[in-house]
Amino acid sequence: MKLATYKDASRDGQLVVVSRDLSTAHYATGIASKLQQVLDDWNFMSPQLQDLYETLNNGKARHAFPFAAAQCMAPLPRAYQWADGSAFINHVELLRRARNSAISENSELPFTFYTDPLMYQGGSDDFIGPCDDVVVASEAFGIDFEAEVAVITADVPMGASPNQALEGIRLVMLANDVSLRHLIPDEMVKGFGFFQSKPATAFSPVAVTLDELGDVWKGGRLHLTLQSTWNGRKVGMCDAGDEMTFHFGQLIAHICKTRNVRAGSVIGSGTVSNKDWRHGYSCIAEKRAIETIEDGQPKTEFMKFGDTIRIEAKGKDGQSVFGAIEQKVVSSAPPNDA
Amino acid sequence: MKLATYKDASRDGQLVVVSRDLSTAHYATGIASKLQQVLDDWNFMSPQLQDLYETLNNGKARHAFPFAAAQCMAPLPRAYQWADGSAFINHVELLRRARNSAISENSELPFTFYTDPLMYQGGSDDFIGPCDDVVVASEAFGIDFEAEVAVITADVPMGASPNQALEGIRLVMLANDVSLRHLIPDEMVKGFGFFQSKPATAFSPVAVTLDELGDVWKGGRLHLTLQSTWNGRKVGMCDAGDEMTFHFGQLIAHICKTRNVRAGSVIGSGTVSNKDWRHGYSCIAEKRAIETIEDGQPKTEFMKFGDTIRIEAKGKDGQSVFGAIEQKVVSSAPPNDA
Repeated sequence: MKLATYKDASRDGQLVVVSRDLSTAHYATGIASKLQQVLDDWNFMSPQLQDLYETLNNGKARHAFPFAAAQCMAPLPRAYQWADGSAFINHVELLRRARNSAISENSELPFTFYTDPLMYQGGSDDFIGPCDDVVVASEAFGIDFEAEVAVITADVPMGASPNQALEGIRLVMLANDVSLRHLIPDEMVKGFGFFQSKPATAFSPVAVTLDELGDVWKGGRLHLTLQSTWNGRKVGMCDAGDEMTFHFGQLIAHICKTRNVRAGSVIGSGTVSNKDWRHGYSCIAEKRAIETIEDGQPKTEFMKFGDTIRIEAKGKDGQSVFGAIEQKVVSSAPPNDA
Repeated sequence: MKLATYKDASRDGQLVVVSRDLSTAHYATGIASKLQQVLDDWNFMSPQLQDLYETLNNGKARHAFPFAAAQCMAPLPRAYQWADGSAFINHVELLRRARNSAISENSELPFTFYTDPLMYQGGSDDFIGPCDDVVVASEAFGIDFEAEVAVITADVPMGASPNQALEGIRLVMLANDVSLRHLIPDEMVKGFGFFQSKPATAFSPVAVTLDELGDVWKGGRLHLTLQSTWNGRKVGMCDAGDEMTFHFGQLIAHICKTRNVRAGSVIGSGTVSNKDWRHGYSCIAEKRAIETIEDGQPKTEFMKFGDTIRIEAKGKDGQSVFGAIEQKVVSSAPPNDA
């Protein structure tokens, strides 16, 4: 089934069930008002939502209405965890190669990068909807999109294996993990990871169950092409499946090494990235890396106020699976100088 | 007022109001069942809880019962954000000095460390109660406690100044930010910040409003002595006030540079640390740093299974303000080998 959260001026919005073709929706009132409730009690609530989903697909839901992505918050408007991997090692290799080609250093990744996933803990108190603006104080921060796949989990206990962790995946969606590239170098020096360089993350209009995905969900990976369209120009057609070095079960198990993962945790794949540059890019930093490797310096600039980004994945039938993330970059009031 | 969350086998527990002297409590049923609800709608709900608090203190609450810290979850058993600072720069200096004395390197901190707070994003989906066990897979991880002060916020908008951010502090509590020291070096090399090295964080039995703290809350700092007792031996009597380099408003404003902070965010001070070593230590890593500086190598070992840690702060009247964190370190089933 497909689930979304409609804006209603509350913090958690209203849970809606969305038809397979994303044309209609129906409030889940009477079953659950918030997605977190469903995740807290999945075995009881999800069959009821599934029934409503089937009725809706059959055109028999009595209070169905046309579905509008612009009315959506993130499927989970706020979550208890956002842990983002960098599971496409090609992305890591590319950025490192560009950085080191600039300073003539060895660009080989440490061996452990292929066995031990890179993951960072992100802020999850203020997720934004698929059509909400990306609000940034200054273009000088180096505004970049990052097209990703993300999953929402059940409870997964400390010590779970990657295969056990796969069983804890409830829903799949897309994410735009906006990054402020020019704030990253100073944060790397501090050693405490990304912080100010990661503003609010946006998610696709709908989150989709694994049974609904069918055979495009395989081995803990989403085997679909992620399309990134920047200012109306298609810049990325990257395969999100085969080249994902660590699958989602491995990412979740990485967290579980020292703690429990609780229901409603959101786990990201990191920028979807392919070895073959003809697939394009899912973040501008990669384009700039390629330019640096080829010409010694980057040519493409980061996003400006007014820029738009669209992120979408289509199924074998050509239909949008998760709906599209469609955001515009806008300026906030300038931050204080403290 | 003083608030706590009682265990009831649910994920969020039951909100209780606790008397000033921590002797009695009363369910907040009828006002709110969960602390997050109160934070979401503070101006409406907090006066009602304050009324109940006064009735309870006057011995007039009809269904009061003896308060038991062991029945407590963390005041917020799960939160939408946990951002932990390292606001006592003495802690940072000490650990750096020890590390560099071992490798004969310059130990001066970069100037920016005194103007730009160190903060990391932590996991907030699985906080643990004040008397819950610290569950770790292996002593070889280098198990350490970290005695801290933490606050819970209201909504604070992007761009807020440190002074504006101070207005967004709702509650104060204590934290044990357990750290797995031997997992930190490898995570530092990866550059994505702490992750597996930070297991579940524990919080004091009660969270306390600023008006209740009176003049020990000043300038965004808690002017009380934090007592750390390891295996029954008092090892730390550290002042949590004057030497906090960055106050809580500065820490919150640091987050607000690029995003909104939403109600129920938990912000930590980092290990409370004093320049005068006679105050002792609020984490074992500092003791080992001092030993390294003095003798070239650390002598004190990290925590073993069965070890206990008690963290508490007493008011001017000698009474416990937040109740005590009292935890035992225990072994989990061994983690998988993936």
